Amino acid sequence: MPLTIYGILASRALRPLWAATELGLPFEHVQTDYRQGYTRTPEFLALNPNGRVPVVVDHRPDSEGGDVVIWESMACALYIARYHGTVAGKADGTTITPATPREDAEALRWSFWTMTEVEKDALTVLMHRFSMPEPQRKPELADQAERRLHVPLRVLEAHLAQQQARGEAHIAADRFTVADLCVASVLLWVRATRTLMDQFPLTSAWLKGCLARDAYQALKKKSA
Amino acid sequence: MPLTIYGILASRALRPLWAATELGLPFEHVQTDYRQGYTRTPEFLALNPNGRVPVVVDHRPDSEGGDVVIWESMACALYIARYHGTVAGKADGTTITPATPREDAEALRWSFWTMTEVEKDALTVLMHRFSMPEPQRKPELADQAERRLHVPLRVLEAHLAQQQARGEAHIAADRFTVADLCVASVLLWVRATRTLMDQFPLTSAWLKGCLARDAYQALKKKSA
Repeated sequence: MPLTIYGILASRALRPLWAATELGLPFEHVQTDYRQGYTRTPEFLALNPNGRVPVVVDHRPDSEGGDVVIWESMACALYIARYHGTVAGKADGTTITPATPREDAEALRWSFWTMTEVEKDALTVLMHRFSMPEPQRKPELADQAERRLHVPLRVLEAHLAQQQARGEAHIAADRFTVADLCVASVLLWVRATRTLMDQFPLTSAWLKGCLARDAYQALKKKSA
Repeated sequence: MPLTIYGILASRALRPLWAATELGLPFEHVQTDYRQGYTRTPEFLALNPNGRVPVVVDHRPDSEGGDVVIWESMACALYIARYHGTVAGKADGTTITPATPREDAEALRWSFWTMTEVEKDALTVLMHRFSMPEPQRKPELADQAERRLHVPLRVLEAHLAQQQARGEAHIAADRFTVADLCVASVLLWVRATRTLMDQFPLTSAWLKGCLARDAYQALKKKSA
């Protein structure tokens, strides 16, 4: 197994799990469930002292220095695409790995953008509309977060329109790449919020396409 | 000029400016001052619809698709190191570009970590202790943010101790890389907060070393 991935699918571990599955990589999946305190054991903290999932361990040969430990979910996805995808510049059109400086720039900028402009508010909507026990939900927090999300979603919608104008159906290219994976893995938290998503038809259609992919569907099925 | 960098030094534009200066790259510096509304002009929004600095434009030859536009400060710094540094695997020991998968993993995970675990609280300390006009400051916000920062700084301090144990003085390697640049460019906001930094002697010494570098000093001097 070239990789070990820690974290359940219903967590940010989706991001490296999805990347590895897209690439057809064999990996060991350790179902570290943060809800049961498993991210606070001494063993886990030795891997990630921040006490968060995911963690990816890339088992490289000793000649290359041995195991590489990656955390931060976006870093994990980008790393897997880079070191376990197709060599940059030699993409055959089906890999998620950025194949040109421009594709790589898109992957980098949109993955950071997702963390700085989208993730917190998307999580608030998810928690206070769907995930938390009903008595603990605060609908006004979800409403405020939803309103703020219009700002980044306008940016993404305009980008997808530009991409279509140049004949490309995805964020970084005319194929699904790790850039799409990084953004979709967060926006899926608000996909059921029709009052938001219906304002952004290109984004909605693009997201639907990402989530219909075999790799994502296979992961969902395995964890069901 | 291979690059154009938008944004004043006293902004997140420090990150790509520092990266380009470390690499000795010529670049055009457009002093887009966010404080004067210059990030809200139609021209600027065409470059970055998020209306934020920095923006980096990499002027690549038409044969490679022409200009590549990058935003999100950490993405900008990582991109410059990757595409304008030394070819990975052939580092001569003085480049800031990650030279191995492990060094690249460090650069990716610590740059995301800085954004998700450190930046917001560090900015709160900076604003409410130093930057805002005194009547607008709320010292209790700075105090709370400072207390929260102990958590990530404990993680960084332990990592630097591990690095020293393996004979490496920096975050990703035995030399200054873009990983150090990304983290230091945020921690410098709290370097004067002795009640915090004195708890973390390895981090303090490492940060001092980063900020003493010729490239950083040259940038400070130019903008003074």
